[in-house]
Amino acid sequence: MKKDIEIAREAKIKDIEEIANYLEISDYEKYGKYKAKINPCFDEKKDSKLVLVTAISPTPFGEGKTTMNVALSMGLNKLGKKSISVLREPSLGPSFGIKGGACGAGYSQVIPMEDINLHFTGDFHAITSAVNLVAAMIDNHIYQGNEKNIDLNNILWKRCVDLNDRALREVVVGLGKKTDGVTRQDGFDITVATEMMAVFCLSNDLYDFKKKVAKMIVAYDTDGNAVTVDDIKATGPVCVLMKDALKPNLCQTLENTPAIIHGGPFANIAHGCNSIIATKTALSLADFAVTEAGFGADLGAEKFYDIKCRQAGLKPNMTVVVATIRALKYHGGQDLKKIDEENIESLKKGFDNLRIHLENLKKFSKNIVVAINKFDQDTNKELETLKNLVENLSLKAFECDVYHKGSEGCLEICNYIIEKSKDENDFKVLYDEKLPIEEKIEIIAKEIYRASGVKYSKKALNEIKRINNLNSDKLPICIAKTQYSLSDDPTNLNPDSEYEITINDIRLNQGAGFIVALTQNILTMPGLSKRPAAYDIDIDDDGNIMGLF
Amino acid sequence: MKKDIEIAREAKIKDIEEIANYLEISDYEKYGKYKAKINPCFDEKKDSKLVLVTAISPTPFGEGKTTMNVALSMGLNKLGKKSISVLREPSLGPSFGIKGGACGAGYSQVIPMEDINLHFTGDFHAITSAVNLVAAMIDNHIYQGNEKNIDLNNILWKRCVDLNDRALREVVVGLGKKTDGVTRQDGFDITVATEMMAVFCLSNDLYDFKKKVAKMIVAYDTDGNAVTVDDIKATGPVCVLMKDALKPNLCQTLENTPAIIHGGPFANIAHGCNSIIATKTALSLADFAVTEAGFGADLGAEKFYDIKCRQAGLKPNMTVVVATIRALKYHGGQDLKKIDEENIESLKKGFDNLRIHLENLKKFSKNIVVAINKFDQDTNKELETLKNLVENLSLKAFECDVYHKGSEGCLEICNYIIEKSKDENDFKVLYDEKLPIEEKIEIIAKEIYRASGVKYSKKALNEIKRINNLNSDKLPICIAKTQYSLSDDPTNLNPDSEYEITINDIRLNQGAGFIVALTQNILTMPGLSKRPAAYDIDIDDDGNIMGLF
Repeated sequence: MKKDIEIAREAKIKDIEEIANYLEISDYEKYGKYKAKINPCFDEKKDSKLVLVTAISPTPFGEGKTTMNVALSMGLNKLGKKSISVLREPSLGPSFGIKGGACGAGYSQVIPMEDINLHFTGDFHAITSAVNLVAAMIDNHIYQGNEKNIDLNNILWKRCVDLNDRALREVVVGLGKKTDGVTRQDGFDITVATEMMAVFCLSNDLYDFKKKVAKMIVAYDTDGNAVTVDDIKATGPVCVLMKDALKPNLCQTLENTPAIIHGGPFANIAHGCNSIIATKTALSLADFAVTEAGFGADLGAEKFYDIKCRQAGLKPNMTVVVATIRALKYHGGQDLKKIDEENIESLKKGFDNLRIHLENLKKFSKNIVVAINKFDQDTNKELETLKNLVENLSLKAFECDVYHKGSEGCLEICNYIIEKSKDENDFKVLYDEKLPIEEKIEIIAKEIYRASGVKYSKKALNEIKRINNLNSDKLPICIAKTQYSLSDDPTNLNPDSEYEITINDIRLNQGAGFIVALTQNILTMPGLSKRPAAYDIDIDDDGNIMGLF
Repeated sequence: MKKDIEIAREAKIKDIEEIANYLEISDYEKYGKYKAKINPCFDEKKDSKLVLVTAISPTPFGEGKTTMNVALSMGLNKLGKKSISVLREPSLGPSFGIKGGACGAGYSQVIPMEDINLHFTGDFHAITSAVNLVAAMIDNHIYQGNEKNIDLNNILWKRCVDLNDRALREVVVGLGKKTDGVTRQDGFDITVATEMMAVFCLSNDLYDFKKKVAKMIVAYDTDGNAVTVDDIKATGPVCVLMKDALKPNLCQTLENTPAIIHGGPFANIAHGCNSIIATKTALSLADFAVTEAGFGADLGAEKFYDIKCRQAGLKPNMTVVVATIRALKYHGGQDLKKIDEENIESLKKGFDNLRIHLENLKKFSKNIVVAINKFDQDTNKELETLKNLVENLSLKAFECDVYHKGSEGCLEICNYIIEKSKDENDFKVLYDEKLPIEEKIEIIAKEIYRASGVKYSKKALNEIKRINNLNSDKLPICIAKTQYSLSDDPTNLNPDSEYEITINDIRLNQGAGFIVALTQNILTMPGLSKRPAAYDIDIDDDGNIMGLF
């Protein structure tokens, strides 16, 4: 089989005008021949369907969530339904840090993958500029007299770069002479971990974005009052910098079906989904919008429903859970060296992970289906076993060979999705956002993570008090937790284990409109490895890129 | 008279395809409707002419160099010569810091000015990413074992943002835990002050860019050997990040003539001209390429000739020196409050500044003309006096009312430029780059800055020794000096004063291919003022930007 990059380069890519014509979009701006920024549409079709692609808890192999998303959308198009694959934009950090693009694989990819994995249409650069402009304005405010009495030891706003750079995690700025600013501790996050990115993705339009930007808390003053972006007069310039970025980006798949790729927040400290604007635009332009959420269903899907769908007023019609035989055997404790050998016992044991995710998802809606992302080494016995296990839960599982076959590898499940999407939409969120913070956390911890209870650090309890005093507690919860286990312990692969979850810290994202509950210290700035992917990345004299994927 | 932004918004802007068609360009990619990236062309027409627009020493008023550049190019087009205005890209820093765009003024502007003054086509973001990726790779190299024995106290490479942010001038990175990197002193420059920007602008093509990137010195090792970008394996990824940025950007003027806007290095610590690729592309596509250089002719024009033209093998055909009556009176010592009153004495005294610049320019070529950028308050007597003073030097000066009239205000000088450009090209550089560093500095100091001699700090002398030892001394000199005076003292407006110039520091830009001689501590990261322009910048609900200009 050819490499992903070879398949992508051999694809008959169409001028993006043709893709825009297929969707009957007239109002768009080309960014090169194969990308376009389209004007947001908020005129959702009455009968357009929203499909979420999520997955079991991640394993070292990757389960192929994006690959499946792209394939399903291509399959729906093939079956006569206009469908758009709605995805997140990749960050430059991982591109130069660890191998692996974010554009799918095999015959189920979005293109042009080099552009998408590099600067794309500049959205993340706009966010980086906006975040750093706010930081410059905070430090300038302090330097020019600190009229708002910002407490130098209580500044929440960090600068950012869209790169993996551990040396920027903890810094001191404003050293040097008196004219070089006021000295204080500071730090940089990777752009995708900033609240600005979350706000970008959770805004319904420019007007809503502006309101949310204004509300972001940058610091507390010496009396403990919140100081916002608006207080330091940065709302306007931020919105000016973000004007074009707010427009969704149109691309295409290897089968020339449309893809909208827009926004990409972290899935732990933030909600991990593409922008609301992109999803709504897709629902306005097509019969199906096939979107995805980061990590496993415990993190990605839960936040997609309880944060994004709640804020946007969206009601997903169908949830697809991606699983692989290999990953389930891994969850079942199979030795990594023997992962490709048939082992029904490991598979059955590992199925518990999928089972819990499916039980969880039923709490939001009954419309769920399992997509088995098929690999060459999967045996018929394994595949039949898995399908039977899923059927025992009164759900269906379909084999999908989308890596080798693209849309042809998933037509059966696509037909099922089309039929089931006609069912009455029974979607509901998990909890009432007006409940007290601790109650909301407890519901998620017990219902989704299967914890027996919640413990809080003193710091977390103090922060809850502060948020209650600010009267900002009536927001959904975004739990920052390991993606590798349903619990807060990445090494615990037993989803039925008895444990209490620990909340170490709480952060108010007043602009984005959620409260982050951290189970551990989540790294918001990754580092490069001893041999970063960058070492293999090069360009030849003809302009061909090598080693990026 | 209308505001610049009103004039720009009322302009009948053409689809960039029409501009490309006018230049017979087939190979381009649109970035929105009014911008395009074009493939570089290096097939310079035999008889295409290169015109440089430079100016007298700057004053607080601005002399209108870009405005004149745009007008002259429009005028040449009107007279039947295909002409392209070739300009620098503006930095985001000043846009949010101090008022004033970089797109010309009145009826002589390039458009779309909002895009050009904001993210444009993302070139500067690509440079920012590339610079910061190299920094991350340096710190990662040290963290992962420091195989090259990089001396932590001898790291030259700084990170950057394209913003005014004084708090980032002097920082400490790598604080926190052991896993948060190695602690060291560091600093950020504004993107336009980086060597990456200079390399970008001085490269002849991608191949040349790659060679120059590889050679940039990032640090010295503990034995004093240079450690380059290539040594830390960052050449390839930098070039991949810069692939698209290296393509020139096509825009248009208010009269729909073509403009190529590409690159924008500082004019003190670097050479202050748009990219070589842009200039060569313009010379391949048009009869005239009208370009400009930063600050006054002592800095901008000298570096344009001795650094850019030398490296690119370009021979300019004509140099236009922009002067205003008001600015000359300022140089003549006229009271600022009475600057708009007729004063022939001040004008005559201030003319010394223009005279010296003209005498200097004659050392490169005899083809020089003075463009008087006319203001409403200029009197006929003042204008006649100035023209006579110029004629006494056997040169011509033309009145140009380009602010009110666009091309119509400068047809006379355009006709003159067309005729004079036919003269044999007698251009030569000022000095042999193979001379010792001190000799080259002395030539520039005496011939251009009119100093009687050069003094060196101990630090500068040590650095010259190091450069000689590295055998990297055979490069042109880039002097970082105040733009407000011909001397190194910004308050000294007498160009005939007796003084010695002081070189405080020397820096080797091995990638860009020049040696910087600093007369003072040049600020490579500006700060925001007490009331930054950002305070007035906003966007309304319909997406209209306010306060940017």
